[in-house]
Amino acid sequence: MNILLTNDDGIYAPGLAALYRELKNLGEVTVVAPESEQSAVGHSISLITPLRVKEVSINGGVEGWAVSGTPADCVKIAIAELLPALPELVVSGINAGPNVGINVLYSGTVSAATEASILGVKGVAFSLNSYDINADFTTGARLARDLLAQFQGCSCWTNGTCLNVNLPALPRDQVKGVRITRQDTGPLVEHFERRVDPRRHVYYWLAEIHARQEPDLDTDYGALGQGYVTVTPIHHDLTDYRSLSDLQTLNWE
Amino acid sequence: MNILLTNDDGIYAPGLAALYRELKNLGEVTVVAPESEQSAVGHSISLITPLRVKEVSINGGVEGWAVSGTPADCVKIAIAELLPALPELVVSGINAGPNVGINVLYSGTVSAATEASILGVKGVAFSLNSYDINADFTTGARLARDLLAQFQGCSCWTNGTCLNVNLPALPRDQVKGVRITRQDTGPLVEHFERRVDPRRHVYYWLAEIHARQEPDLDTDYGALGQGYVTVTPIHHDLTDYRSLSDLQTLNWE
Repeated sequence: MNILLTNDDGIYAPGLAALYRELKNLGEVTVVAPESEQSAVGHSISLITPLRVKEVSINGGVEGWAVSGTPADCVKIAIAELLPALPELVVSGINAGPNVGINVLYSGTVSAATEASILGVKGVAFSLNSYDINADFTTGARLARDLLAQFQGCSCWTNGTCLNVNLPALPRDQVKGVRITRQDTGPLVEHFERRVDPRRHVYYWLAEIHARQEPDLDTDYGALGQGYVTVTPIHHDLTDYRSLSDLQTLNWE
Repeated sequence: MNILLTNDDGIYAPGLAALYRELKNLGEVTVVAPESEQSAVGHSISLITPLRVKEVSINGGVEGWAVSGTPADCVKIAIAELLPALPELVVSGINAGPNVGINVLYSGTVSAATEASILGVKGVAFSLNSYDINADFTTGARLARDLLAQFQGCSCWTNGTCLNVNLPALPRDQVKGVRITRQDTGPLVEHFERRVDPRRHVYYWLAEIHARQEPDLDTDYGALGQGYVTVTPIHHDLTDYRSLSDLQTLNWE
């Protein structure tokens, strides 16, 4: 199997290296990842600026291409220019920090998997429920490899879906199981910290984004918090079909 | 009515000024927009860098706040810090260039409307089917104002939906009508231009993104191309509900 590996924490992130080592057991792995951290870039792509690509060799044995762009850019340029053939699978991660609830929309990690689905390739995003860049990604990477083996048989791929997987930051024997979940849509609790710079100018920094409602085990947010691996199918058709008929009833001039 | 106006072409864009002049007929308009062009930033937000905000007064009578961030950042900070109360409506645009099909995912313009819906406010994005920054936005802005009056009665707002509106770049009497559409999901045709810089280093620039299939009048892409205003309801739950049951049938360890 030919696998394209990317992420949004950047090509030097330990979460990528851990996943690389496990994916090599499944096939040929090509790494094409951002040269620097791209957190919360959402599904952005580079149009105003060009992309630069350089081959890098990283401690831990990872070889690959570092791209001056976003995760979605990496998937696009890998498939268009760098890979000899279309990969069979695009894997993104492992991200340091969960991508659940509304944060899925802000996630560069997930956008790489979505971009794969747009281009007709299976895509899976993995995120660890810990913001510590030095967390134990080894356990999560092994779990990711086992999950990928099980995803192979899923008919969900034919729908143009990609999978958003969140992993508990727990030893394997404390993981409660795997839950198929929907994206939590609960409201965010966030605020801006107002600060003053050395020249006495005000600036603002976004702090603490999380959902506030009670955990629901049918959602990614709820189940991950309870120690489950969550698997959420994600699509790239943003149409709200429920509202189409409401709008049709309006009397357009 | 208290209206928040933003965009992704930046606070100095003529498309924003044209919309500002029309919206002032509907209520109190506050402009909070990016200080520079933010095209294709998708739903990105600023976490790594802080935001700076400055009051600006622009030729054409626009007064507002310029923010060193993305459209989604603008909506967040406007509601959290700059506005005295929650606005009743967030309007984004008018963007120079359509936001239809897969490009909706890359669109900063649409992300501002989506962010509004996340924060519990009605959101509408307007885009003009012309990439010319000096196109005639006046006709489109008048059309946008008339459409907003009709949207008021829509029950779609209760679903947490926002509206993605695309306007033909045509005189009013040549606009064929309004169509309620779904997002086109047809594949993209795009390529990277490979160039060489003055120091003989290679760089790549993404060129020509458009959908290739035959126009379908039920989609945003198809109907806009035929001269219709398109209105697409957009939601922020990315779960592919069709695939949930497929995944449930897998035998998880």
